[in-house]
Amino acid sequence: MFTRMSELFVRTLREDPADAEVASHRWLVRAGYIRRAAPGIYSWLPLGLRVLENVEKIVREEMNAIGAQEVRFPALLPKEPYEATNRWTEYGDGIFRLKDRKGADYLLGPTHEEMFTLTVKEMYSSYKDLPLSLYQIQTKYRDEPRPRAGIIRGREFIMKDSYSFDVDEEGLAASYDAHRAAYRRIFDRLGFEYVIVKAMSGAMGGSRSEEFLAVSPIGEDTFVRSPGGYAANVEAVEVLAPEPMPFDDLPPAHVEQTPDSPTIETLVAAANAAQPREDREWTAADTLKNVVFMIKRPGEEAEPLAVGLPGDREVDLKRLEAHLGEGVEFEPFTAEDFAAHPELVKGYIGPGVLGEQNSSGIRYLTDPRVVSGSRWVTGADRPGHHVFDLIAGRDFTADGVIEVAEVRPGDPAPDGSGPLALERGIEMGHVFALGTKYAEALGLKVLDANGKQAVVQMGSYGVGVSRAVAAIAEGNCDARGLAWPPEIAPYRVHIVATGKDAAVLEKATEIAAALDEAGVSVLLDDRKASPGVKFADAEMLGMPTTVVVGRGLADGFVEVRDRRSGMAENVAVDDALPHLIAVVDGVPDIEG
Amino acid sequence: MFTRMSELFVRTLREDPADAEVASHRWLVRAGYIRRAAPGIYSWLPLGLRVLENVEKIVREEMNAIGAQEVRFPALLPKEPYEATNRWTEYGDGIFRLKDRKGADYLLGPTHEEMFTLTVKEMYSSYKDLPLSLYQIQTKYRDEPRPRAGIIRGREFIMKDSYSFDVDEEGLAASYDAHRAAYRRIFDRLGFEYVIVKAMSGAMGGSRSEEFLAVSPIGEDTFVRSPGGYAANVEAVEVLAPEPMPFDDLPPAHVEQTPDSPTIETLVAAANAAQPREDREWTAADTLKNVVFMIKRPGEEAEPLAVGLPGDREVDLKRLEAHLGEGVEFEPFTAEDFAAHPELVKGYIGPGVLGEQNSSGIRYLTDPRVVSGSRWVTGADRPGHHVFDLIAGRDFTADGVIEVAEVRPGDPAPDGSGPLALERGIEMGHVFALGTKYAEALGLKVLDANGKQAVVQMGSYGVGVSRAVAAIAEGNCDARGLAWPPEIAPYRVHIVATGKDAAVLEKATEIAAALDEAGVSVLLDDRKASPGVKFADAEMLGMPTTVVVGRGLADGFVEVRDRRSGMAENVAVDDALPHLIAVVDGVPDIEG
Repeated sequence: MFTRMSELFVRTLREDPADAEVASHRWLVRAGYIRRAAPGIYSWLPLGLRVLENVEKIVREEMNAIGAQEVRFPALLPKEPYEATNRWTEYGDGIFRLKDRKGADYLLGPTHEEMFTLTVKEMYSSYKDLPLSLYQIQTKYRDEPRPRAGIIRGREFIMKDSYSFDVDEEGLAASYDAHRAAYRRIFDRLGFEYVIVKAMSGAMGGSRSEEFLAVSPIGEDTFVRSPGGYAANVEAVEVLAPEPMPFDDLPPAHVEQTPDSPTIETLVAAANAAQPREDREWTAADTLKNVVFMIKRPGEEAEPLAVGLPGDREVDLKRLEAHLGEGVEFEPFTAEDFAAHPELVKGYIGPGVLGEQNSSGIRYLTDPRVVSGSRWVTGADRPGHHVFDLIAGRDFTADGVIEVAEVRPGDPAPDGSGPLALERGIEMGHVFALGTKYAEALGLKVLDANGKQAVVQMGSYGVGVSRAVAAIAEGNCDARGLAWPPEIAPYRVHIVATGKDAAVLEKATEIAAALDEAGVSVLLDDRKASPGVKFADAEMLGMPTTVVVGRGLADGFVEVRDRRSGMAENVAVDDALPHLIAVVDGVPDIEG
Repeated sequence: MFTRMSELFVRTLREDPADAEVASHRWLVRAGYIRRAAPGIYSWLPLGLRVLENVEKIVREEMNAIGAQEVRFPALLPKEPYEATNRWTEYGDGIFRLKDRKGADYLLGPTHEEMFTLTVKEMYSSYKDLPLSLYQIQTKYRDEPRPRAGIIRGREFIMKDSYSFDVDEEGLAASYDAHRAAYRRIFDRLGFEYVIVKAMSGAMGGSRSEEFLAVSPIGEDTFVRSPGGYAANVEAVEVLAPEPMPFDDLPPAHVEQTPDSPTIETLVAAANAAQPREDREWTAADTLKNVVFMIKRPGEEAEPLAVGLPGDREVDLKRLEAHLGEGVEFEPFTAEDFAAHPELVKGYIGPGVLGEQNSSGIRYLTDPRVVSGSRWVTGADRPGHHVFDLIAGRDFTADGVIEVAEVRPGDPAPDGSGPLALERGIEMGHVFALGTKYAEALGLKVLDANGKQAVVQMGSYGVGVSRAVAAIAEGNCDARGLAWPPEIAPYRVHIVATGKDAAVLEKATEIAAALDEAGVSVLLDDRKASPGVKFADAEMLGMPTTVVVGRGLADGFVEVRDRRSGMAENVAVDDALPHLIAVVDGVPDIEG
C-alpha cells in the first residue's frame, strides 16, 4: 500500500534544532526522520527507519554475496572475555559498564571480536571448517566524550560488523580482499564519494588495515592523498625518511651560548648568529625539538615519554593518540613533572639526558627524519645553551622511532607519488586484518592439514550503518532539504495533491494506487494544507520524484519534478503512469 | 541461493546443555539455533536468526495491516521520563541501570510507554492527528531474578511493542480491538494453541487488559478456564462472591476457649466440640484466617498489611504480588514484626484489633467472600481463644477487599459459566488499555473537536518475539528434535545427499538449485558424513520436508519425508520437482 501523508507519523519543523551543527543533522531532524532521545541517542521515526532499512538491505546483500553468514549477538555482554583481551581496561571511559542484580559486571558491546572468537572456538575445531565469515547488523554502544552531528557520532548506533576466520595468512588475505571488494560495492551503491585510506594497525595488533572515508568537509577524520593515488588516514601516514648519511666529514658537536632564544624562530636566528653552517644557514628544520609527555596506560603508573622531532613541526596529538592506542591518556609535562625531573631543563632539553640509557632514563623516540648522520641544533640541558652539530647515530641514539609529527599539505607521499593534500572524511567502514591477536588471547586454534594446532587468523570489518544514513544525507541535501538517491529514499515518488477540487485528490490517489501496483513506493500528500506548505514539505522530505496533481489537471496535465535537478515538466495525465515508471526504471531523468 | 550444510555455521550437539530444563531450550541449543552468552542472554546463530526473522515478518505484516507505523526507539534511555511516571523506582531490581561518563543515569528499556508518549507530545497537538498507532520490533532488557528456559525468559530479548493514541475512550476501544484482532491473526499464523485471558490491570492503572497465553505445561503463568468460555490469568480471577446476607436472626458473637488448635483443622474440630452451629457443623471455610505481611513499596517505609480470608484457602503469593504491583516487596510477619506489634497474638489474630480504625491501625483487607452477613470463627486476640459467630458488617468491617486467595480447580467461574480448570501457559502477548495514566503523568494532551485540551487515551500492546521462537519450538518438537511449521522453518526443504557416488551429489545439487529457482528455501546437506549422521541432523534441525537423494537414485527414485508425521515415500526423480512444489504449496501432505 502507498502511504498517506495525512496518516504518516511525521511533522516537519520550521526551525533548526539548537544543537545541529551540520546539514544532515539539521535536515534529518527537521524533516522528521530521526528524533533525539538523549545526547548521542536517537529514535528512528517511520521515514528514517525506511532509509535505515534500505541501507541495511544493501549491506546485507553484499555481505551475503561474499558468503558471509548473518547472525545476531547480544549487546549486553559479560566482562570476562573482554578482560581476557584486556579491552575491559583499555576502553577506559569509552564504553558503558553496568552491574546486574547479583553484582556481576557487564558492558554494552562496542564491537564483538571476543564474543565471535569464543563462539567459533566452541563450535569449530578443524581447518576443514574454515574459511568462515560471520556478520551481524546490530546496535552498538560507545560512551563518546563528545557525541556530535546527530547520528554521525552517536552513543547508540547501528553497525554491520563481520569477522573472518582462516587457517593461515593466505586465507586471511583472501577474506580481507573479499570484504574490501564487498565494501566497495556497498559504498558505490550507497552513492558516496569515498576514499580508501591506509589506517593505523599498531594498536589493534594486526597486519593490514584500511578505512573507507566519505569525503566531506564536516568529517572528523583527516586524510591525505597524492596525485599518484596514495591515500592514508593522517594517523597512518608514514614519513618519507631520508636514507642514513655518512657523518665522517662532519664537525664535532659543540655547545654554544644561545641567549634570548625561547622559540624555534629565535633559536634559528641565534644559531645563525653564533655558528652558521659551512654549507648554508640553519633553518627550523635543522633544530631538534624534544617534547616530553606523561603517559598513563590503563592499570599502570603514569610514566614520561620524550619525543624528538624537527623544530618546524608540532606533535600531532591525534597521531600521538593513535600511536599510543585506545585508552592511553597523555598530557604535556607540567611544572610539577619538571620539578620531579631536574635533569630536564625546560626549553633546553636535549638527547644528552634522554633515553633509557641516559641520566633521565626517560624513553626517547624520534621522528623518522632523525636518521643516522642527520645534523641538529638542539638543547644542551643547561639554561641558555644549545648544542650544535649533534649528529644522530654518532652523538646520540634514541630508543626508537615514532610517527607523530604533523603532516602538512605538500609533504611528499611516502611512495613517491607526489605531494600530499589534506582533506576531511567521515569514517564509514574499516577493514582490518587482525592476525592472531584475539585468537591467541582466547585460545582459538584448529587442527591444520598436518594435524597440528594452528592459531586461527582473524579479520574484523565494520560498516557504520546508521552513520551511513547521515553521510548520505550530508552529501545529498541543499538549502531546501534532503534529496535522496533513489535506492535509499524512503519513497521513490511523492505525489502532491493541491487544491480543493475532489477530482484532484481522486486522480492523485488513482496514480498512487497504480504506481504502488507497479511496485513503486509512493507517499501521497492528501492533507488539507496549502500548496505552498506541501511543496516545501516535499522538498524537505526529499523523495527523488514529485508529481503535482493540481491546477493543470483541468487541462489534462500533471507536473513531474526532479528533486535533485529542480527540473519540472508537464506530462499528459494519461501518460503519467508509463512516464513515471520509465523515470523510476532509470531512463535518463527529466530534461526540463 | 540455497545453503550448503558444509558451509553453514552450525554444529549439532550430542548432549543436552546442562542448564536446559525444557524441550525448546534443549533443542534450540543442541541444533545450533541459539547459543548462551551469559545467563538469560543468547546469540542467534544463522538458523535461529532465520526463524526469528520469519516470526518478525509475520508480526510486521499484521501490524502494518492495522495501520500501525513502524519506528525504532533506542534501548539506552535517560532516567527522567521514567522518574516522571515513578517507574524508575517501581521497577526496583528488575531493570538494568547504568551511568554514563558524566554520571548521568540511564536504563536499558524494559518497555517504552514514556518515550513514545513524549515523542507524540512533541509532535502532535490536535485530535485531527489521531488516531495513531506506532510499533517497533526491538531489543528489550529486564534483569530477571531467575532467567530460565533459554529464550523463554531472557534478560535481553526481542519484543514487538506498540502504543496507540486516541482522543477519547471510544477511540481507545477501537485501537484496542484492532490490536487484539491483529494478535489473533499473528498467533494463528505462528501456529500456537493459545488462549486469551483476562489479566490484571490494577497496577498499570488501565481499564482493560488481556494476555495471549500459549498453552503449555512448561508455562510460568497459571490460568483458569471454564467450559462456558471464561478465561483469566490466575492473578486476574475474580471470586464469585455471595450476595450480602441478612444477619438479624444470627446469634451474638461470643469468645470461647479453643485449646490445642494450632491449625485450621484442629480449630474446626475444637469449634465443633465447643460450640457447633445450630444448622450444621463448622467447616474450614467458616473460619476467618488473618495473615499479616510486611509490605515495602519502593521509596517508602515498610508497613504491615493484614489479609483476611476463609481458612480453607491460602494466600496465593503470585496473586498478592500482582495485586501489590511491580516493585513492591512483601514477606510474612517475622518474630521481630510480631514483637513490634504486641496487640497481634500469633495464631489468634482477629478482626477485633485489625483495620485502620482499630488498635493495631494495620490496614485490613478481606477476601470477597467476607460479605456482610457472613458468619465466622476467628481469632479472639488472646492466646487459646477464638471468637464464634462473628458477623461481617455487624461485628467488624474491613478497610477494603483484596483478591489474593488461591484459586482452586472446580471453583465456579465468576460469570457463572461453570467450574474452573487450572492450566499453564507462556505469556506471548499482552494488550492493555492504559487510559490516561502515562499521558497524564507526562502531559500529553491534544485539542479536541471543541477546542478543549483533552488528555490522550493510550493503549500499550506487546508480543514476545524471541519468546515466540521458543514457544513455537516447544510446541513443535519430539524426541528426535525440532519440527517447524512451514511458515516458520529456516528452510522449507532439507535435501540430504548420501553415499559417495558423484551422481548423487550432482542430482541433489540440481534439485536444490531448481527448488531455489522456484522460490523455495533449501538446505543441502553436502557434507562428507555418514547417512546416519545426516539423517539424525536433519531430524534434529527440523525442516518440514526432507528429500533423500541416495541409494534409490540408481533405480530412479528419491525419498521424500515429512518431518512431522514421519511418513516417507519414494518419488520418481523426474517427478521430484513438481511433487516438492506441490508439497510446499500446501497440497495435503504425504500420505505414506
